Amino acid sequence: MNFLEERICKDGIVKPGNVLKVDSFLNHQIDIDLLDMMGKEFKERFSNEKITKILTIEASGIGMACMTARYFGVPVVFAKKSQTVVQDDDKYIADVASYTHKVTNHVFVSKKYICPEDKVLIIDDFMAHGQAALGLIDIVKQAGGSVVGVGIAIEKGFQQGGQILRDRGYKLESIAIVESMDPETGKIEFRKQ
Amino acid sequence: MNFLEERICKDGIVKPGNVLKVDSFLNHQIDIDLLDMMGKEFKERFSNEKITKILTIEASGIGMACMTARYFGVPVVFAKKSQTVVQDDDKYIADVASYTHKVTNHVFVSKKYICPEDKVLIIDDFMAHGQAALGLIDIVKQAGGSVVGVGIAIEKGFQQGGQILRDRGYKLESIAIVESMDPETGKIEFRKQ
Repeated sequence: MNFLEERICKDGIVKPGNVLKVDSFLNHQIDIDLLDMMGKEFKERFSNEKITKILTIEASGIGMACMTARYFGVPVVFAKKSQTVVQDDDKYIADVASYTHKVTNHVFVSKKYICPEDKVLIIDDFMAHGQAALGLIDIVKQAGGSVVGVGIAIEKGFQQGGQILRDRGYKLESIAIVESMDPETGKIEFRKQ
Repeated sequence: MNFLEERICKDGIVKPGNVLKVDSFLNHQIDIDLLDMMGKEFKERFSNEKITKILTIEASGIGMACMTARYFGVPVVFAKKSQTVVQDDDKYIADVASYTHKVTNHVFVSKKYICPEDKVLIIDDFMAHGQAALGLIDIVKQAGGSVVGVGIAIEKGFQQGGQILRDRGYKLESIAIVESMDPETGKIEFRKQ
């Protein structure tokens, strides 16, 4: 097991409905040393890529994105969420359905902050159905930029987001891929990488 | 001028209604080197304090809080915002009025992540009327913890948040305090520190 898989086994809590709570170290309280290790890991996994910008989505991706950006020496841009954003000439907008919260959010990025020359690494804490990553990819495409890859802390391998992105040819690197988890026993199985 | 004041003069945009847009480097696109300098600056300004946790509020405080936490070697906790959170036994909740968005958000922190032993440094990107900081202070007090200080990137010195906190005896350190700004000329004046 790698450092993140070990931490998930130690402190993650499996809840009914395919919920994995990691809010003691990743998305409410944040272990900064762990984020630093994740940033270093993404730098290794994307070491052959030329990256000019890291794109994430508020709120829980921001910490990881910043700690990763240190290793690449590039700025972070975080997409903002709104249920009411109005289309205008200043923003790229994409729709992101949340299965957890049963709502569709619009996410947007100011046109000033992604340009056709940008080679973008997308970073987020979770991937389940892939909606957030697909929304961010859509935004990069609207800007005419390139998506170099997608770096995820925890992928739920039993949901289809990872498959969709890999089928479309994106370089998706997830530090931990959960294959199955059992709310009765708390047991979590990871995909061998 | 210090490094942040210089950056505000270079890239900040003054808009009517006392709005200072810094989204090219602080709260939409993020300059990681700048955040790192801010983290180091907070470490110097709070070097005599024993700190066990950094508390911020989603979303734009998270990057700064993480980069600051590296210098202190402590975890970050970020308060979540919701307009609909229900009072329960698991959360500390405070109200935060937003003058910008004309709404009152509830902010909450899981009771697991702040305890009576905690010595908390509150970090945020902006202070205007002080509502966010006061809400976070309220949460730390509900938990029985101590507020060691408040670290802010940009304080609007012509609004009353900073005065309120200093009058109540909190150690408030703002890297840049804007005394006045003029949307006509773009001129920004800072308080001498």
